Amino acid sequence: MIMTILKNVRPMGATATDLYIADGKFADSADGDTIDCGGRILIPGLVEAHTHLDKSLLGLPWYRNEVGPRLIDKITNEREVKVSLGLDPQVQSERQAIQSMAYGTTQIRSHVDVDTHHGLAGIEGVMATREKLKGYVDIEIVAFPQSSMMPRPGTVELMDEALALGADIVGGIDPCGIERDPKGHLDAVFRLAEKHGKPIDIHLHERDAMGGFSMEEIIARTIAHGMQGKVTISHAFCLGAPDRDYVAGLQEQLAENRIHIATTAPASAPAPRVKELAELGILTCGGNDGIRDTWGPYGNGDMLERAMFIGLRNNLRRDDEVELALDICTYGGAKVMETEGYGLEIGCHADCVLVEGETLAEAVALRAPRKMVMKAGKIVAQDGKAVIKAP
Amino acid sequence: MIMTILKNVRPMGATATDLYIADGKFADSADGDTIDCGGRILIPGLVEAHTHLDKSLLGLPWYRNEVGPRLIDKITNEREVKVSLGLDPQVQSERQAIQSMAYGTTQIRSHVDVDTHHGLAGIEGVMATREKLKGYVDIEIVAFPQSSMMPRPGTVELMDEALALGADIVGGIDPCGIERDPKGHLDAVFRLAEKHGKPIDIHLHERDAMGGFSMEEIIARTIAHGMQGKVTISHAFCLGAPDRDYVAGLQEQLAENRIHIATTAPASAPAPRVKELAELGILTCGGNDGIRDTWGPYGNGDMLERAMFIGLRNNLRRDDEVELALDICTYGGAKVMETEGYGLEIGCHADCVLVEGETLAEAVALRAPRKMVMKAGKIVAQDGKAVIKAP
Ligand SMILES: [Zn+2]
Ligand SMILES: [Zn+2]
Repeated sequence: MIMTILKNVRPMGATATDLYIADGKFADSADGDTIDCGGRILIPGLVEAHTHLDKSLLGLPWYRNEVGPRLIDKITNEREVKVSLGLDPQVQSERQAIQSMAYGTTQIRSHVDVDTHHGLAGIEGVMATREKLKGYVDIEIVAFPQSSMMPRPGTVELMDEALALGADIVGGIDPCGIERDPKGHLDAVFRLAEKHGKPIDIHLHERDAMGGFSMEEIIARTIAHGMQGKVTISHAFCLGAPDRDYVAGLQEQLAENRIHIATTAPASAPAPRVKELAELGILTCGGNDGIRDTWGPYGNGDMLERAMFIGLRNNLRRDDEVELALDICTYGGAKVMETEGYGLEIGCHADCVLVEGETLAEAVALRAPRKMVMKAGKIVAQDGKAVIKAP
Repeated sequence: MIMTILKNVRPMGATATDLYIADGKFADSADGDTIDCGGRILIPGLVEAHTHLDKSLLGLPWYRNEVGPRLIDKITNEREVKVSLGLDPQVQSERQAIQSMAYGTTQIRSHVDVDTHHGLAGIEGVMATREKLKGYVDIEIVAFPQSSMMPRPGTVELMDEALALGADIVGGIDPCGIERDPKGHLDAVFRLAEKHGKPIDIHLHERDAMGGFSMEEIIARTIAHGMQGKVTISHAFCLGAPDRDYVAGLQEQLAENRIHIATTAPASAPAPRVKELAELGILTCGGNDGIRDTWGPYGNGDMLERAMFIGLRNNLRRDDEVELALDICTYGGAKVMETEGYGLEIGCHADCVLVEGETLAEAVALRAPRKMVMKAGKIVAQDGKAVIKAP
């Protein structure tokens, strides 16, 4: 049994103490190697709760983006560029997952494209990466109909196969805006969830009344299928709509039916207000979404940077507010993903990150290279560098 | 005469070549030390065109922010905290300026508080830093009535003294929202500008119709005083208003009267649309605004990061769009500040930065530590570290 003592460490910014790790979990005592943490703050592993491991261009020559402005331009372009660049979802997902790990992420929920052009290549690739990185970073896979499901016959069947093969979650996408058939799309998504006994995570970019309509349809089916606590809505731009009375009604129903929200806190789109969600007890998680892909050049996988983005988008300035942003990128994600034994308490898995800064807010503001990242008590990154090499 | 050869360098991402520096300027030939640039991209020095050097808390113990939500809460709190923390504007401005320099900034426009509580202490402090850092980073000082001018008798006189003492620019602030006297405030600002023969840079946070009204008043006085090309409006949130027809009318007048816009591209407030401004030929510069101060914990002085924020806020994804964001943080700032000899052409001052990345867009996306920063041909930072130590 491997045992470790973390000396002079400040859990969540508290007074310095010693922590003990035995057999991959925090324990009340341990013999073993001592790691001097130099009074640094320890937080539980960062949780990347919304990304796309299969589509990053990390490690490839720079992709010059000349894509058109519409959502459909980006979707079509990506489907084609994947072929012309010969993108290997296994290699790309491994690159991104290892980079995320170096930034302190210990678990990832990744949407992975399922379409009639590429079939299950994405799912198989990310599943291979999940196996390869076992013990380094946990990966949860959402079967994601990026190119739409209803207008492209055969996609529902592929989704079904993906879920049978090993995808953990049923994905979905703009029931009106992209699917053009909200009833057909959402019926199919919930049918797949029921058949496979798996949760749901739906991309919902639709704004204002249209997004609200789709959200109401998701809520209705969550109730009908008794799926309270098992449904996440990603992006949920409609919750950032100016009509706050209407949004309040939606949020009340989300809270009532324990539907979760995943946000990237986009600067250029309406975004859910994380303080309102927190007050209503709606579980909220954060994600980087696509990282350096054909959609856009930004992103590096750093969930402390995402906490800053959540803070900036929601105008979080007070320390307690910045701590909420960090909570979304740690505990929030773990709760949405129903991670057992997440945290720094005795008995929890020793998935944790040593960060720089005097306080949690400073850790977010600084975003300095992570001093150390542990997965189940094993060091997986140090001084910003992963202990394993990306392909 | 000091001469240097920059070998294997890619000016603005072009094909690799050699550049020559003689007597602090780019030249068509030179003998002297050779610096191998490893094929990296060279850009002219980053321009921090809107910040507050006097109020950063860099180098101090973490300031726990528990400030109220209103603008006036933040202004009042800051005026008091400056006393309780014993903030020294000279030391703080030197700390921030050196940190900015390490990130590749070679010139800074800093607003500096002038109020009846602290008098000219801020101006004197930043002027001392400007002297101290001569040859490392250029600092332009805006006399800034942060606590308001009209409601606080004696402030106009202090502004007058600040400008006589050495401040370069006349500042101003929300003529309605804070001053509560748009006519009185703007008359005073333009009178000071006329008296001292100096340009103007006004903070305008006011939104929608109120901001538009104040902007119209600024435009009217720009015309009346013949100050075309000499007035900058900082923030200009009202240009992000939903009423695009009204905004188009304002923008037309800004273009006509060569009034410049400084933006931080805030994620949580309406923001000027930089692509529209560029199309209209309105000069636009970027700034980090306050860095880690009593207003908020974020910011580090990195203008490549600011270019990313401008990109994210304006949904700039294509390479040519990201290049616009970078242009705002380089040439845009230099044009607004009327910097002579800015650029990489022969005869220009050798103020420049070696950045990482295959393309300009990648440099912005990566924001890796700057390989080298030069001021007038002298190395002032290397591998992300300044060659001089902050106090
Ligand atoms: Zn996504
Ligand atoms: Zn400012």
